[in-house]
Amino acid sequence: MKTIFTDITTMDEYGNAHTHRYVVVDGDKIAGIFDARPAGRFDREISGKNKLLMPALYNCHAHTAMTLFRGYGEDLPLQAWLNTRIFPAEDLLTSEAVYNASMLAAAEMLRNGIVSFSDMYFFSEDTIRAVAETGMKANIARCITCFNPDETKDTDARLIEALALHKQYHNSFGGRIKMDMSVHAEYTTLPHAVKYVAEAAKELGLHMHVHMSETESEHNECMERNGGKTPAQHFAELGVFDVPTIAAHCVWVSDEDIALMAEKGVFAVHNPVSNLKLGSGIMPLLKMHRAGVNVVLGTDGAASNNRLDILREMNVAAMLEKGRDRVCDAMKAADIIPMATVNGAKAQGRADCGSLACGKKADLIMLDMDTPNNIPSYEPVTSVIYSATSADVCMTMVDGKILYENGEYKTLDIESVKHRMRDTVAHYFDKK
Amino acid sequence: MKTIFTDITTMDEYGNAHTHRYVVVDGDKIAGIFDARPAGRFDREISGKNKLLMPALYNCHAHTAMTLFRGYGEDLPLQAWLNTRIFPAEDLLTSEAVYNASMLAAAEMLRNGIVSFSDMYFFSEDTIRAVAETGMKANIARCITCFNPDETKDTDARLIEALALHKQYHNSFGGRIKMDMSVHAEYTTLPHAVKYVAEAAKELGLHMHVHMSETESEHNECMERNGGKTPAQHFAELGVFDVPTIAAHCVWVSDEDIALMAEKGVFAVHNPVSNLKLGSGIMPLLKMHRAGVNVVLGTDGAASNNRLDILREMNVAAMLEKGRDRVCDAMKAADIIPMATVNGAKAQGRADCGSLACGKKADLIMLDMDTPNNIPSYEPVTSVIYSATSADVCMTMVDGKILYENGEYKTLDIESVKHRMRDTVAHYFDKK
Repeated sequence: MKTIFTDITTMDEYGNAHTHRYVVVDGDKIAGIFDARPAGRFDREISGKNKLLMPALYNCHAHTAMTLFRGYGEDLPLQAWLNTRIFPAEDLLTSEAVYNASMLAAAEMLRNGIVSFSDMYFFSEDTIRAVAETGMKANIARCITCFNPDETKDTDARLIEALALHKQYHNSFGGRIKMDMSVHAEYTTLPHAVKYVAEAAKELGLHMHVHMSETESEHNECMERNGGKTPAQHFAELGVFDVPTIAAHCVWVSDEDIALMAEKGVFAVHNPVSNLKLGSGIMPLLKMHRAGVNVVLGTDGAASNNRLDILREMNVAAMLEKGRDRVCDAMKAADIIPMATVNGAKAQGRADCGSLACGKKADLIMLDMDTPNNIPSYEPVTSVIYSATSADVCMTMVDGKILYENGEYKTLDIESVKHRMRDTVAHYFDKK
Repeated sequence: MKTIFTDITTMDEYGNAHTHRYVVVDGDKIAGIFDARPAGRFDREISGKNKLLMPALYNCHAHTAMTLFRGYGEDLPLQAWLNTRIFPAEDLLTSEAVYNASMLAAAEMLRNGIVSFSDMYFFSEDTIRAVAETGMKANIARCITCFNPDETKDTDARLIEALALHKQYHNSFGGRIKMDMSVHAEYTTLPHAVKYVAEAAKELGLHMHVHMSETESEHNECMERNGGKTPAQHFAELGVFDVPTIAAHCVWVSDEDIALMAEKGVFAVHNPVSNLKLGSGIMPLLKMHRAGVNVVLGTDGAASNNRLDILREMNVAAMLEKGRDRVCDAMKAADIIPMATVNGAKAQGRADCGSLACGKKADLIMLDMDTPNNIPSYEPVTSVIYSATSADVCMTMVDGKILYENGEYKTLDIESVKHRMRDTVAHYFDKK
């Protein structure tokens, strides 16, 4: 399959834009980017008139199946939300519910230009099934918690499951699925367990995915429990940062933590919407960016967002930096683009993804710049960050295959996905 | 013309929802809301399946024609943005440019469920022309500034223009157009001029529209210039608050200002996105809400937003309160709905608008709740605030007439509007 985008404005993963380009996709790769129409025959020709072609978006912190709990328990303080709504509801999860919820999440993400996500949850095989079917990419982590001081790596059922999943699925489906290792957080996983999970990740060459310093109390209580060590210092000491690590939230990290994360190459996932909605605070994005931390973006679960929309996270991230510090010119639109594209791909160990460049995987999205909110567009990069919305995404391509285009899905039956989700929700709480 | 919405979920202006309703619109009014299908013949029947019907949205602070400058001068500090980009660009404004820009703004607002806006700008007749043609509603204020101590009400060309506009257009087009009086701000209008404009408003029974305490420096410099008086105290003393006043921004108001605004019934316009983007700060919404201030919502101009999207302002307003104070349960979803509907209508002196109630003007919007981001919906009011986006607005009705439905505009030729806007932009800066 050979596709050509004709006479199109392109924007690369650093926000650099060019008009009147011709982009050729051959098989799963970007085969060429030209100033004039190249010779040759193409199976599909897509007009670039009033369109913008850019690298597709990465969602680096998700609990995908939580679309099931979208809007279930709103306007509650975090602990009440978790204890009275989310935890009891998660106790009722089934394979089928997770699969249906993951399919709906996949539909929403593809519609919003997201091609890959880093998931931390359970019932991993059911989320993997949704990713495999829809043609998306994902790094899947079976979330590990451990409250038992006698647990060992040989008895820990969650770790055993994670290792079995790794064996079966890592790099499966043409590399679309990768498995990460995960400890949920410092406060839910005893130190010795953090250590043996980190060791397993190191041995297998896997990435880690953790929650870190999301709330002030989590951060401070970690220090109380661990002789003054912050979650970042704690994880570093236990070997977590010896492998590439995705650390979600990082709202309350100290300046020393930031220096440590920069040194260790930790990927900090900024989830600005979820952090606002749960009242956790605002991650010090600018400080981290300046310190050289690899920042990426995430939606967190739909229960605390409520949308799976990285373009919106990009916009909110840019705006919050200006509003909080009352400085408008410190964080530029172009600084945000790599966080959602090439940095996200790196965080997932996908060096061949996340860029609009010859030879890279053709993971691309096209934005309709002919919508009222995108007119005028003086500069593509600022239009993408400040004017565009996910509703402007008119095409999402993964590995050279178009999975979503102008309201239509190519690999899923959206009416059936919605029907199954409504049906799941209607009966979900009957079991209580 | 008689329209019936059948078997639909309704949500009123306070967030109260009911399923399986039948809503009848007769002429320009809501004629009935029923639990079962009423007898009678209808010209149009609209299925409510997976739809939500609610009062349409009010945008209470706009500089409509600034869509022309959307994205023109991004990531700049406020003063550089104004002095190097916006003010020189505004110097080149023409009637035709303002008309074309207002038409594009109208298209964007209708698409986003906004039926009425409070505009403060110049070239008022060109914006009025757009409102009249499209069938929208607007309160239009010719913005008055005065730096000349010798100016009087009889010599002030801007006031004279405002009075002439009032005479010609107030309550015109079936009441869709109302004229407000406006002083731009304390720092741009000498006290004696503020006074004579306020007196004119009082004499004519008009509302006022001002900028107030948008930035910290504006607020503090006002106090320095006026013997310690804040902009609110200054305006109150000069008689502004003797008429219903729309005070835009209010980011830096003091506790005493808030009490004064509550006492005087001042409408505070929260513009959360613009205030973030320009680095002005965050309005103390919760404090004002608790003090009984009439809070309404605005987009400000597209140059500092960049979208005209009140559903997004509703979402951002709700989220910022949680994130800033780290309290999740203080500002509820249902608290936000009246700010965008019935309070907005009141701020515009439209007591017969802004509500989903029998006998009120039929200014209604319908949201598609069958989009992936709106599934599941455990509670309509929280879905509207946290899950929905303006892309879910599938119908906008003004005075019983549908002006936008499923991507189609009934009163404007969207291709022509976009073409004229692109053409205006392409040649706009040639004159420099």
